[in-house]
Amino acid sequence: MTSLVDRYEGFIIDLDGVIYLLHDLIPGSAGVINHMQEAGIPFIFLTNNSSATPRMYVDRLRKHGIEIGPGNIVSPPAVIKRNLEMGWTGGREGAGGTAFVVGEEGLIRQIEEAGLELVSGEEAKRAEYVFVGWDRNLTYEKLKTAVVAIRNGARYIATNTDATYPTPEGLWPGAGSIVAAVTCGSGREPEVAGKPNPQIVELALERMGVEARSALLVGDRLDTDIAAGLAAGVDTLLVLTGVSSALEAEETGISPTHIRDDLGALLDP
Amino acid sequence: MTSLVDRYEGFIIDLDGVIYLLHDLIPGSAGVINHMQEAGIPFIFLTNNSSATPRMYVDRLRKHGIEIGPGNIVSPPAVIKRNLEMGWTGGREGAGGTAFVVGEEGLIRQIEEAGLELVSGEEAKRAEYVFVGWDRNLTYEKLKTAVVAIRNGARYIATNTDATYPTPEGLWPGAGSIVAAVTCGSGREPEVAGKPNPQIVELALERMGVEARSALLVGDRLDTDIAAGLAAGVDTLLVLTGVSSALEAEETGISPTHIRDDLGALLDP
Repeated sequence: MTSLVDRYEGFIIDLDGVIYLLHDLIPGSAGVINHMQEAGIPFIFLTNNSSATPRMYVDRLRKHGIEIGPGNIVSPPAVIKRNLEMGWTGGREGAGGTAFVVGEEGLIRQIEEAGLELVSGEEAKRAEYVFVGWDRNLTYEKLKTAVVAIRNGARYIATNTDATYPTPEGLWPGAGSIVAAVTCGSGREPEVAGKPNPQIVELALERMGVEARSALLVGDRLDTDIAAGLAAGVDTLLVLTGVSSALEAEETGISPTHIRDDLGALLDP
Repeated sequence: MTSLVDRYEGFIIDLDGVIYLLHDLIPGSAGVINHMQEAGIPFIFLTNNSSATPRMYVDRLRKHGIEIGPGNIVSPPAVIKRNLEMGWTGGREGAGGTAFVVGEEGLIRQIEEAGLELVSGEEAKRAEYVFVGWDRNLTYEKLKTAVVAIRNGARYIATNTDATYPTPEGLWPGAGSIVAAVTCGSGREPEVAGKPNPQIVELALERMGVEARSALLVGDRLDTDIAAGLAAGVDTLLVLTGVSSALEAEETGISPTHIRDDLGALLDP
């Protein structure tokens, strides 16, 4: 039987829980990427983790023996940046405006590049946008500023709502955990840029020049990866090296096209 | 017509949004307390805010011209302390054990006084209890430790789930906002010690020696104050100096016995 890697024209692959767990490469994953590069098969790493810039992901993957360019990376800030450039408006005069960010460098950089002015302190309480992502430097002060700004009318945009972040020592709180605090305090639900929003999958398809029906999305989470693939109309592969189990796939009714132990199984005959 | 203050034998009164807003006394509230003291009417300040110890509340109220003793204060840590002393066990051998706290001094002190050992760092990830309350020194690190410990089996107890904390500059994220982050990251719901848990109202009634049917609970929040009063079978007064509005009382169906503009109205004929 044909291996999965030969049955699709392009691959959209999650990073955390599929390629690596925090600092540890998952065995077999580098081999698959090397195979795709040798065979000239297009692929995009699609991550909901907004803590790093594409350039930082390139460096991180190089250490694992995977050589790619920043164009191979799509994350929620890219969707946010494009939506801002295409004229997302905050429902206020003079949009473009000011933003308060709860997040790390990857998110902050792309919001600056999209032309928004980052504000802090008192000014942030009147920001036009509040962006919330994974932030290992979260403080109560940041949480408070975000809540006050949203209650004052800021547009509230989350990178993603992954409840947890998989690491070798277990699950840490993900962006979704921080978003839950802001949502509770502000009484408002965010617009979500990352998976399961199909927009981010569409951006990855565009980048590869591959149509939805010819692509496979690979991920470890049903509620984000697989749900995004279903919404965008691409086939999906759930791998069991991260958050979700095969049993959960049955129970939740979010059904991937394929289930395999790990990414390496793409090469299995 | 008789004033409300003459129609009950004891009063259970919320602090934030009823007596003061952050640092500002709400006009008329000190006069009501002084009247009760002169008339020998028993009262308890019942707050879901666990950031301060009873002694700290005494000092804070003195600055507002209200002289009380620590016995006049009941907050979630008192319920937690009593439950621990009465043999709450963590479902593990050797309960009594270790605790990780996301919270401020008021919570930390009473957990120590109840005989639990506070742990941090690596040890905290194996704590037997995780307590979560309002914490203006919240960090991602604390959130992570709480989530990992709960996922490792710790008993998860929240002081309260008030989404917001009323201040003169608007609503800040309350303990509920922090609890939402921990709940999202851990995938577990907490046991809640504070209002709307009727246990805390019962503790206040005991302390005053007044029966439920002869007491009035005064608060500014429907979902905590008024709900706790209803659950404990005491009459309730919603005042409009804090979070909830009279319209919300109609919409939510959490119906207080009385609605007045402020605490001062207790003295109105």
